[in-house]
Amino acid sequence: MSRNLLAIRHLEVEEIEEILILAAEFKKKVTMGAPLPATNKVVGQLFFENSTRTRVSFEQAAHYLGMKSVNFTAGTSSLQKGETLKDTILTLRYERLNGLVMRHPSSGAPALASRYFAGPVLNAGDGRHEHPTQAFADALTVMERRGSVEGLNIAIVGDVEHSRVARSNAWLLAKLGANVRFVGPRTLMPAHSGLLPGEVYYDLESGIRDCDVIIALRLQRERMESGLIGSVGEYARMYQINRDTLRLASNDALLLHPGPINRGIELDDAAADGERSVITAQVENGIFVRMAALHWCFAEDKPKPKPKPKPARSTKVARKKVAR
Amino acid sequence: MSRNLLAIRHLEVEEIEEILILAAEFKKKVTMGAPLPATNKVVGQLFFENSTRTRVSFEQAAHYLGMKSVNFTAGTSSLQKGETLKDTILTLRYERLNGLVMRHPSSGAPALASRYFAGPVLNAGDGRHEHPTQAFADALTVMERRGSVEGLNIAIVGDVEHSRVARSNAWLLAKLGANVRFVGPRTLMPAHSGLLPGEVYYDLESGIRDCDVIIALRLQRERMESGLIGSVGEYARMYQINRDTLRLASNDALLLHPGPINRGIELDDAAADGERSVITAQVENGIFVRMAALHWCFAEDKPKPKPKPKPARSTKVARKKVAR
Amino acid sequence: MSRNLLAIRHLEVEEIEEILILAAEFKKKVTMGAPLPATNKVVGQLFFENSTRTRVSFEQAAHYLGMKSVNFTAGTSSLQKGETLKDTILTLRYERLNGLVMRHPSSGAPALASRYFAGPVLNAGDGRHEHPTQAFADALTVMERRGSVEGLNIAIVGDVEHSRVARSNAWLLAKLGANVRFVGPRTLMPAHSGLLPGEVYYDLESGIRDCDVIIALRLQRERMESGLIGSVGEYARMYQINRDTLRLASNDALLLHPGPINRGIELDDAAADGERSVITAQVENGIFVRMAALHWCFAEDKPKPKPKPKPARSTKVARKKVAR
Repeated sequence: MSRNLLAIRHLEVEEIEEILILAAEFKKKVTMGAPLPATNKVVGQLFFENSTRTRVSFEQAAHYLGMKSVNFTAGTSSLQKGETLKDTILTLRYERLNGLVMRHPSSGAPALASRYFAGPVLNAGDGRHEHPTQAFADALTVMERRGSVEGLNIAIVGDVEHSRVARSNAWLLAKLGANVRFVGPRTLMPAHSGLLPGEVYYDLESGIRDCDVIIALRLQRERMESGLIGSVGEYARMYQINRDTLRLASNDALLLHPGPINRGIELDDAAADGERSVITAQVENGIFVRMAALHWCFAEDKPKPKPKPKPARSTKVARKKVAR
Repeated sequence: MSRNLLAIRHLEVEEIEEILILAAEFKKKVTMGAPLPATNKVVGQLFFENSTRTRVSFEQAAHYLGMKSVNFTAGTSSLQKGETLKDTILTLRYERLNGLVMRHPSSGAPALASRYFAGPVLNAGDGRHEHPTQAFADALTVMERRGSVEGLNIAIVGDVEHSRVARSNAWLLAKLGANVRFVGPRTLMPAHSGLLPGEVYYDLESGIRDCDVIIALRLQRERMESGLIGSVGEYARMYQINRDTLRLASNDALLLHPGPINRGIELDDAAADGERSVITAQVENGIFVRMAALHWCFAEDKPKPKPKPKPARSTKVARKKVAR
Repeated sequence: MSRNLLAIRHLEVEEIEEILILAAEFKKKVTMGAPLPATNKVVGQLFFENSTRTRVSFEQAAHYLGMKSVNFTAGTSSLQKGETLKDTILTLRYERLNGLVMRHPSSGAPALASRYFAGPVLNAGDGRHEHPTQAFADALTVMERRGSVEGLNIAIVGDVEHSRVARSNAWLLAKLGANVRFVGPRTLMPAHSGLLPGEVYYDLESGIRDCDVIIALRLQRERMESGLIGSVGEYARMYQINRDTLRLASNDALLLHPGPINRGIELDDAAADGERSVITAQVENGIFVRMAALHWCFAEDKPKPKPKPKPARSTKVARKKVAR
């Protein structure tokens, strides 16, 4: 039996740590040019929404693991012909794809797909629900620099309501012991934000005060059209992370952004390109966490005489392993 | 010299059987994980119409045979710049593609392409003309369950007029000795249906009575807009294969559909997902018949001291070889 | 350090000759089936404009060199989300792509990209600026047939103003000693054509008299809409290369066209398919010059004890090496 990676919310802390340790190991091997476990899997890259970064990242991860990618996007698929998702997934299953990486505008679509597919399904972003591998990349990036996320104050700034990145990050960081804050205008905060693991701030200054990490979210331009914010200028004035507002956080606060960036809106150039920014590190770590995710999802395929005994290590030990 | 696969209509019975036997052999090898003949060919997947299932199936077939696929769809090609098909094909030929899988809205386009291309051209569906590999997948699926198609009553139900699947299936099944019936409304029957090898029925009940196999065709929604049928509801009432109408056929009748399915129109869920349905088997066999087709088309590339002597076996013997 | 291939204009004659010699060697090896240098690079094929021929050609070139291609077109990329080119390129860099082949509607975009990317960037056509590999393919095609381009009269006919092919060809051919002529209507000639290395002719007859080579350019239909030419018919009457106008050139003049061809506009069928036409040879050579370009750009990646001593050969000797 293989495993799916559908949501951070339903993962155990031990599973999260296992994937992060795997990612750190893959990173070492790839950057040293060490041999990697070769498999012969074929992975479908099923993107119902536009994406450069995530698809290429998953393709690279698959490539490093010796897997072949088969791409298809909504535009060229039978989906346009009114086929149900169930039938599309059944078709891909019986066309002998071994795994499925799936991005979809509807929350829960990858979970639905996993009911009909025979191998692992990896959620590459579904509606406002989750984007698990982005959260792994972000956590690895922070842990490499801080050793652990435990006890860190981490502000997620912007359009939390519509952001799957915010949700996956909040769950993952909270599970690993960070203090999560959501910062943004009332209209872009979830109605039931109490269901998410973090405190809500409507004011940037108090929201990022003493923060060790700031995760700025992308502002979808569609939010303006629907009237949720007054204007881009107003939003930027109140919530932009820039040379000035960065000073409100800790001295050595890290700045993350899942991309693509709207420069001049959620970030200014000084922040995006400054020394606090670890945005390109997030991008690179994206490959290693996706390698880990693919490997972890397929791992159970191999016959194992017995599950490797979990050492009685504290989670801190595990976290240290992925540190610098 | 390589061979093309353009239409079932022009194949000899012996050629059809050769491809089906090859497909059954490939199926055995792939499912057992046995080594396959590796080639170093590059195959262009040239899709001028949207397709998930057929393109992925051909890509998988090529992959299992060690061939590389180069994809291009109409949307991103020079075709948009007004280039003639002849020049597109000449370009791909001199760009050293070894083979071409081609889907095109115009009947005969793959045949035209084969005049300018140097290697094999495989028709992956052209207008209302033919879709040969779908017919091979369907025949293999039936033969695995019935040993042979000879003497079987097989009803092709729906929009025969606009269906390349109907045409390829009719020719293939008739050549192998099945009794083919076309069932559907007068407006969706070819004007000169006498040119196709089968009997015409306008009434579902009599059309599928005593049938061993039902092949339901997809109803293109465009047919309604053009006034050829009154409404989807009316069509479904008269020609839908469902729990009730399935009872009109033989007790153990098989139900096939080339996909993508319009659930609630040509099939209801009970039929599509029921025990008579072999739709997912069709999908899986699609890969093996496409492997066979690619192998068969390229086979003549290899120097052969002499053509392998055709054993004096009856076609029945051959057909038995692909049976369960 | 790797190298970029952004523009012919900035290449030294020795570099041009080095790439042409490499291309001729690769051609020999590929057509003889000899082993090729295998690398493990991943090359991004970044096409912001539609293309079949150039993308497939680069994909084939990468494939022959054992490189993997990762494709993305503007339609499915984050570019649609308002990301800056800088951020797109940074993302691809940190997603560990090793090289970038890039077509873009804006002149200079590949040069900009090369500032943010870590490996080689190859210009596959940018705005009205350059299309270097097309010029290499054209030069190789002429040199195979004439031994050298030195001293040849070469007319570039048509919409010079909007043509990156014209610019790259003019620079390359002039650097190798050819006499370049630009032939076309005043409205399709660059305002400052004196900045390009060639003589201007507004009259086809005098422009191609005694020419050894004619390079016909594609006429973009958009030129008519913008009023730069009166009508397609008028343009064809005055500048079409056809059975009659070909007689104005040398007896054995070669006819080239970068494709895609507008048959009936810049060429008639007799010219496009006649014995003077070397259009399909251009297409095939496109692969070998792109192999050379990729190899040349990546070459510096390998540690070299010392730069190979440049033999004191004249350029003529070098040119002879690529001759038949």
